[in-house]
Amino acid sequence: MTTNRELYLHQRPQGIPTGEDIRLREVPAPRPDDGEVLLRNLYLSLDPAQRDWMSDKVSYMPPIAIGEAIRSTTLGEVVSSRHPDYQPGDFALGLAANTWADYSCTAGDLLTKVDQEKAFPLHYHLSIFSGAMGLTPYFGMLELGQPKPGETALISAAAGAVGSIAGQIAKIQGCRVIGLTGSDEKGRWLTDELGFDGYINYRAEADLDSAIATICPEGVDIFFDNVGGEILDAALMNLAKYARVVFCGAISSYNTSGPVPGPFNYWQVLARSATVRGLLTTNYVDRFPAALEDLRRWLDEGRLKFAEDVVVGLESTVDAYRRLFTGANRGKLLVRLTDNDSY
Amino acid sequence: MTTNRELYLHQRPQGIPTGEDIRLREVPAPRPDDGEVLLRNLYLSLDPAQRDWMSDKVSYMPPIAIGEAIRSTTLGEVVSSRHPDYQPGDFALGLAANTWADYSCTAGDLLTKVDQEKAFPLHYHLSIFSGAMGLTPYFGMLELGQPKPGETALISAAAGAVGSIAGQIAKIQGCRVIGLTGSDEKGRWLTDELGFDGYINYRAEADLDSAIATICPEGVDIFFDNVGGEILDAALMNLAKYARVVFCGAISSYNTSGPVPGPFNYWQVLARSATVRGLLTTNYVDRFPAALEDLRRWLDEGRLKFAEDVVVGLESTVDAYRRLFTGANRGKLLVRLTDNDSY
Repeated sequence: MTTNRELYLHQRPQGIPTGEDIRLREVPAPRPDDGEVLLRNLYLSLDPAQRDWMSDKVSYMPPIAIGEAIRSTTLGEVVSSRHPDYQPGDFALGLAANTWADYSCTAGDLLTKVDQEKAFPLHYHLSIFSGAMGLTPYFGMLELGQPKPGETALISAAAGAVGSIAGQIAKIQGCRVIGLTGSDEKGRWLTDELGFDGYINYRAEADLDSAIATICPEGVDIFFDNVGGEILDAALMNLAKYARVVFCGAISSYNTSGPVPGPFNYWQVLARSATVRGLLTTNYVDRFPAALEDLRRWLDEGRLKFAEDVVVGLESTVDAYRRLFTGANRGKLLVRLTDNDSY
Repeated sequence: MTTNRELYLHQRPQGIPTGEDIRLREVPAPRPDDGEVLLRNLYLSLDPAQRDWMSDKVSYMPPIAIGEAIRSTTLGEVVSSRHPDYQPGDFALGLAANTWADYSCTAGDLLTKVDQEKAFPLHYHLSIFSGAMGLTPYFGMLELGQPKPGETALISAAAGAVGSIAGQIAKIQGCRVIGLTGSDEKGRWLTDELGFDGYINYRAEADLDSAIATICPEGVDIFFDNVGGEILDAALMNLAKYARVVFCGAISSYNTSGPVPGPFNYWQVLARSATVRGLLTTNYVDRFPAALEDLRRWLDEGRLKFAEDVVVGLESTVDAYRRLFTGANRGKLLVRLTDNDSY
């Protein structure tokens, strides 16, 4: 019988999850039931939204139960299958359907088959081609942001996996793009490597509201927000009339317990005739293929760049995950479980 | 020299404005400068938004300065004019351009000429035909609410001037309409007279969230909000997917000082893929004539009803204004300054 190492929720985290909250255990590898597929995971995706599922608050997905393996998007190779569409050796991706484990057993209907391409490595499907990294900013910026040439887009967590792509897509649409980030090093990466027009190191600003006003004198037409809290409040004070706020996440509140007040400057939504829209990438599943074509073309043309932060080994997962919330990572955070780095 | 009695801002109110905050004084009636028009006010409009202008917070209009007459929408008769479009005897309306006073002197370009019609009294232009009462719910419900037949619309301050019209417009569009109001008497007015499908007396409910869930089991597709605060939070917990929140006002916070937290359940905007849009009726000025045609037709057809609450005499204004915030008024609050009630 094959052993499966898996990370499970031992207790609900207070603040940033620790190795006490999420523990490793060895269990027998599951066997697929009718309609299910057993995957050997090659890469795990580490996403801020998972922190939310570790709480017991109401969200767009049910919480992870105590004792359950951590729900995750992963990319794996089919080991055995009782689903007609999957054969051993196939590669498959489960969007928020698999687990942080060596093996995940998942309903085949929740998986997406992935082909190995010559042009791009397989794990791009967990980063730039994924719902969480590439497709979220794609639909968030284009559908909810409605960028028009000459407009100003402000991006929070701009050096993160989603923010860095959102900003580049706004640039491709002809916007002036400013990033909010937590260090000058990251800021320079945005301007020098990704083509952002400017950045604000929010840790270095005593008055973020004024800092935004200075760099966005005409106001902010699109605020693409992954952070919430004080950063959202400062952005709200600088909205241009008819601004669009793309509400993609609220990473500043994921590690708090108890009720979190909404933006104190919520009133500005009325004062600026603004629109705030909540983004769930899964609403656009039908349009993923066309979106992926755009992303592939922009990559080929060198108009889109991104960073990956690949950590090796299941046992490194929790430490790596913590870095999402401390500002220590740049780009899409993945854990590689295979020695074969050609995938 | 004619004397003008006017109500001016003596000090910024803490909470609901009192006669200490807003005082009456007698000054010489102003004389129109080039391009200006002197109006004898016939009716004053009493609107929640004015409370906001009495504070010194950032809003869509500058605050009223200490010592200045209270800015207001009024309907008046032209006494003298130095603007080519206005002659003595004309009737004119100034949207947030006049004052709580016997006489207002206003730039003619900020006024709108109003004709006396056979079918409707002149003062309807301050109630059902006004920006603040008729046109706000018209554009708010139709443009931002995007009602579709069979959807559920929930209206806060539903027995108020704006809410009662917003609900009836949703009914005309084929929605199921539920009103939130502060007494069973008002609730019965909504269902028995205005055709609402149901109401919640929020003062009688210990758990407003559950009360909404019970009466809106499929969720709320449109939340038309004039109140904010706890009522908004309860509504957010009951949004249907792709819900629209029409952010028309936040009367619950107008009398607070200091920062007001935004909705604690703001997160639901993301979780429900909802859209929150801020409503400024003045954005739709070009479409006012077509909107007024619809309102006239619905009135003629008996599909739209409304209440006016007309108080007589400038000296009654502040006491009447306080009732906007205590839940004591029903329908559009006006002060009549003329003995001729045929206007």
